[in-house]
Amino acid sequence: FAASMTTASANEELQKLIDDPNQWAIQTGDYANQRYSELDQITKDNVGDLQVAWTFSTGVLRGHEGSPLVVGDVMYVHTPFPNVVYALDLNDDGKVLWKYEPKQNPDVIPVMCCDTVYRGVAYGDGKIFLHQADTTLVALDAKTGEVVWSVKNGDPSKGETNTATVMPVKDKVMVGISGGEFGVRGSMTAYNMSDGSVAWRGYSMGPDSDTLMDPEKTTHLGEPVGKDSGTATWEGDQWKIGGGTTWGWFSYDPDLNLMYYGTGNPSTWNPAQRPGDNRWSMTIFARDVDTGMAKWVYQMTPHDEWDYDGVNEMILTDQEFDGQERKLLTHFDRNGLGYTLDRESGELLVAEKYDPVVNWTTGVDMDETSDTYGRPAVVADYSTEQNGEDVNSTGICPSALGTKDQQPAAYSPKTQTFYVPTNHVCMDYEPFRVSYTAGQPYVGATLSMYPAPDSHGGMGNFIAWDNTKGEIKWSIPEKFSVWSGALATAGDVVFYGTLEGYLKAVDAETGDELYKFKTPSGIIGNVMTYSHGDKQYVAVLSGVGGWAGIGLAAGLTNPTEGLGAVGGYAALSDYTALGGSLTVFALPN
Amino acid sequence: FAASMTTASANEELQKLIDDPNQWAIQTGDYANQRYSELDQITKDNVGDLQVAWTFSTGVLRGHEGSPLVVGDVMYVHTPFPNVVYALDLNDDGKVLWKYEPKQNPDVIPVMCCDTVYRGVAYGDGKIFLHQADTTLVALDAKTGEVVWSVKNGDPSKGETNTATVMPVKDKVMVGISGGEFGVRGSMTAYNMSDGSVAWRGYSMGPDSDTLMDPEKTTHLGEPVGKDSGTATWEGDQWKIGGGTTWGWFSYDPDLNLMYYGTGNPSTWNPAQRPGDNRWSMTIFARDVDTGMAKWVYQMTPHDEWDYDGVNEMILTDQEFDGQERKLLTHFDRNGLGYTLDRESGELLVAEKYDPVVNWTTGVDMDETSDTYGRPAVVADYSTEQNGEDVNSTGICPSALGTKDQQPAAYSPKTQTFYVPTNHVCMDYEPFRVSYTAGQPYVGATLSMYPAPDSHGGMGNFIAWDNTKGEIKWSIPEKFSVWSGALATAGDVVFYGTLEGYLKAVDAETGDELYKFKTPSGIIGNVMTYSHGDKQYVAVLSGVGGWAGIGLAAGLTNPTEGLGAVGGYAALSDYTALGGSLTVFALPN
Ligand SMILES: O=C(O)c1cc(C(=O)O)c2c(n1)C(=O)C(=O)c1cc(C(=O)O)[nH]c1-2
Ligand SMILES: O=C(O)c1cc(C(=O)O)c2c(n1)C(=O)C(=O)c1cc(C(=O)O)[nH]c1-2
Repeated sequence: FAASMTTASANEELQKLIDDPNQWAIQTGDYANQRYSELDQITKDNVGDLQVAWTFSTGVLRGHEGSPLVVGDVMYVHTPFPNVVYALDLNDDGKVLWKYEPKQNPDVIPVMCCDTVYRGVAYGDGKIFLHQADTTLVALDAKTGEVVWSVKNGDPSKGETNTATVMPVKDKVMVGISGGEFGVRGSMTAYNMSDGSVAWRGYSMGPDSDTLMDPEKTTHLGEPVGKDSGTATWEGDQWKIGGGTTWGWFSYDPDLNLMYYGTGNPSTWNPAQRPGDNRWSMTIFARDVDTGMAKWVYQMTPHDEWDYDGVNEMILTDQEFDGQERKLLTHFDRNGLGYTLDRESGELLVAEKYDPVVNWTTGVDMDETSDTYGRPAVVADYSTEQNGEDVNSTGICPSALGTKDQQPAAYSPKTQTFYVPTNHVCMDYEPFRVSYTAGQPYVGATLSMYPAPDSHGGMGNFIAWDNTKGEIKWSIPEKFSVWSGALATAGDVVFYGTLEGYLKAVDAETGDELYKFKTPSGIIGNVMTYSHGDKQYVAVLSGVGGWAGIGLAAGLTNPTEGLGAVGGYAALSDYTALGGSLTVFALPN
Repeated sequence: FAASMTTASANEELQKLIDDPNQWAIQTGDYANQRYSELDQITKDNVGDLQVAWTFSTGVLRGHEGSPLVVGDVMYVHTPFPNVVYALDLNDDGKVLWKYEPKQNPDVIPVMCCDTVYRGVAYGDGKIFLHQADTTLVALDAKTGEVVWSVKNGDPSKGETNTATVMPVKDKVMVGISGGEFGVRGSMTAYNMSDGSVAWRGYSMGPDSDTLMDPEKTTHLGEPVGKDSGTATWEGDQWKIGGGTTWGWFSYDPDLNLMYYGTGNPSTWNPAQRPGDNRWSMTIFARDVDTGMAKWVYQMTPHDEWDYDGVNEMILTDQEFDGQERKLLTHFDRNGLGYTLDRESGELLVAEKYDPVVNWTTGVDMDETSDTYGRPAVVADYSTEQNGEDVNSTGICPSALGTKDQQPAAYSPKTQTFYVPTNHVCMDYEPFRVSYTAGQPYVGATLSMYPAPDSHGGMGNFIAWDNTKGEIKWSIPEKFSVWSGALATAGDVVFYGTLEGYLKAVDAETGDELYKFKTPSGIIGNVMTYSHGDKQYVAVLSGVGGWAGIGLAAGLTNPTEGLGAVGGYAALSDYTALGGSLTVFALPN
């Protein structure tokens, strides 16, 4: 670890770690974001005997997203702001090998839209990459916790913050940015792993030189995007404060040399203030990892009227589709549609509702010859644009939280099924005029949220999804949104956590509940698994918070506070309280 | 619950709850402070199979002392400042029935000497008694969490605070006070359970009308104390800021109608500033619960020179001593001596070191005819008084934390053995002159602490003690002080927690370790047990802090900060981090 490895060997080492099911080197488990583990000591037949093996309190109260990493004999645990990192010795009962606690200006807290969450560190090249709330990107020596280098990706005084994990790829680290509620213009930046210098930066909007688009070669649904497509659908300079932030999950296909991620909502939430399609907010990007050049894009929600950020993970699978082996990309969007695309070409294959209550659209136009090809048909009743400013549009499904938010889904190649933690929440949305001031909220809508009416009364479902048919296989109703990430394993078990705090294990085929355990606090972390000393462990962070848990996390009680989420989730305090801790499970000895 | 019960029936109900091993109605388990449970589903033979049944995060970070209560189907969980109380439904997976969160001025935090701990609520008369850090005593309706009444016991602006639990007895609630490091004059106050009015208050020092002493009838080692004994051994008005606070545990003998408790250090820590015996600091009090009148007292450490507060619990047992059935009181004092007294008369029966490293005294004069009867003989080398102001007395054992601090011991009538969590720490102590300002620290000594030299290297032991012989039966070395309270059960198991966070179960006869589990954070809470639905549970709060953990709890790193405790326990951060949570254990189904 003493010196950096050569690029090639660092890259090889990381790929080897990712391929080794005993370890968990990056947040997403693998580059494909499948969150699938080959470990099969814990099976659907014995998972009922699971026990808590050990626990670790993080010392931080607010929402704990992401998961620990395991590299060799060391577990790395991160926290929300102040973004502490612990290295725990798995050979010595979790003893703290080192702890890194950055000093950050707490002024960043009020410019984080949706709790002070952090989706976790990543490993690469003997380093632990920490991307702090204040956008400082730090490379820590994985052995000692010492700072190898540190750079600043954004400026919190302008509302630029971070909650996302980074993705180490080859000799670079891919880095996103948050701040769509503060008029931040989103970007993806590749930093060189060796010294933190910038390799490239691609913005979500702006001239081609900013978006790294080739008017001819970059395509949208098979057609060239044309010149300056990142400014052409905006009025004036509005694109400069246009949102489209990149705070979700990133994936990567080594064969195609492409990375995939989605962009967030256009700013502000008041659609009347930004006429046009607002490209490339709400868009799936496929970029060359070496140059940053966009190969293809697909905008899911042109001219957003509901805050349906397009940042949710892109899950890469190789599956048969219409009789052909295809390189697929599956994406469960906030807007309630589950998309399947060809990830090489960006061709749209499937776009179907993954919650039947979705009502703002009747669906996506799949007719390639149509003028509105690939566009969702908007239902006038639920169009906050058509209803206008200062009008409360009611009964829109899903709510701004989307049918799924940041909580990542899992995919099992064994069952060829996606396991998706979802929200089952609708909303009222009243847009109003705002003016932009750097570093001040630039939201422009008042929201209230509630369980989907005329349904099971709960605010979430955990579903199994067929991405080639665009169909729900089974659905487990949940009292609250499932804000935790799922894990699928070769033991035919799927794990997820609930906002009340349960870790649940279900049968990958049937969805039957096989095990549940109440962890100290509500779970918004992602379940991971590793093995150590020939024993399989399952681990999850609990610590309620995130946008759904913002009422508890920030101590808010007014129903429309927390961008409208406080009221809907008020009953959470009947089940759980704040507190970050790791719970590690295993079968009895 | 609607109206208060009659005194007699409330009293009867509480005694019944205390006698019922399925419940845990007051912090000490019973009035005798034995911390022994008749439950025997978990035995020394099966305790190795123990599992975590459920967990609950409290939402508060700093040190969690005390334990939950169980009354009927409800568990009551408290937190340190801000002193939240949760009522959890044991019939519904620990769902929150109600939560009470007092509003307290945070200015109280810096006037709490040893972390913002709270040793827990008590049940009585259909009420939950909460004594807040700011000394507000609140009676909450146990069913609804509504405030029935509320009174203020002290004034935090003068350094008066609270950390102790209250003891409900008959129609009264017994209430102590903290602030010995701020020149607070200690007192015990009995409030009427029905409305919170004061029934009596007995000070630790002052004229007889304040101390509630009868010059003729109140005795010290069999002799009348004489007139105004609470001022006679003080210079001038120094007794008014004389300390002797009452922040420990209280016990009660219904047959004798006496309550027992100890008083803390005389203020300041610089002995040169307060010549004389400083009565009745460092004293065991036996008071009539109806009138408050002191029946007998025994001062263990006259003219304290080391901060050896005498507040540790008095454990009441009926045992044979020298061939006679006696009503005994056993007390493990901070000063390193384990005392056995006759609790009816106050006769001193045994006073022996319960850690062989204790060196400040050669022992207590047990010759009834001697002038120094009952006094410890002070070793000049370790006398901070004799060495003088501004001189660093080194190598004193125990440290100011004592051989035992607030962490309560347990007693098993089956083995007639006491199980004592202890400190194995020594110190350097340099007194200096201070002047008194209300609400400002009035300490006057600089301390540093370290593991007992020439021993096993650790800072604690968990010992078994024979109180009639004054002998250690066995001793388990521990890396850190055992700052958690012990529990003994009819299953011949003894439980305790460690500062690293382990819950441990040992064989009551041999001390052999039978089980251990690493809870989320370091344990300074007290282990309790209850049964629900015919299943025995063991529960403990983790959440590192207290005086030993003050470095972690308050974020202090300078070794002499935290009244000298920071340096000695610096290595704690290699094992654990802050975070309050409850872990509940049971045997597998
Ligand atoms: O537009 C943005 O920049 C931005 C950032 C974040 C974030 O960084 O957490 C969220 C959102 N938007 C958002 O719309 C959203 O629903 C959301 C949920 C969460 C969360 O972690 O629970 N973060 C965010
Ligand atoms: O003199 C006092 O009033 C006073 C109060 C307290 C307290 O209230 O916690 C402690 C002490 N002294 C003290 O000497 C001491 O060792 C101590 C340890 C602890 C703890 O909870 O860990 N509190 C206190």
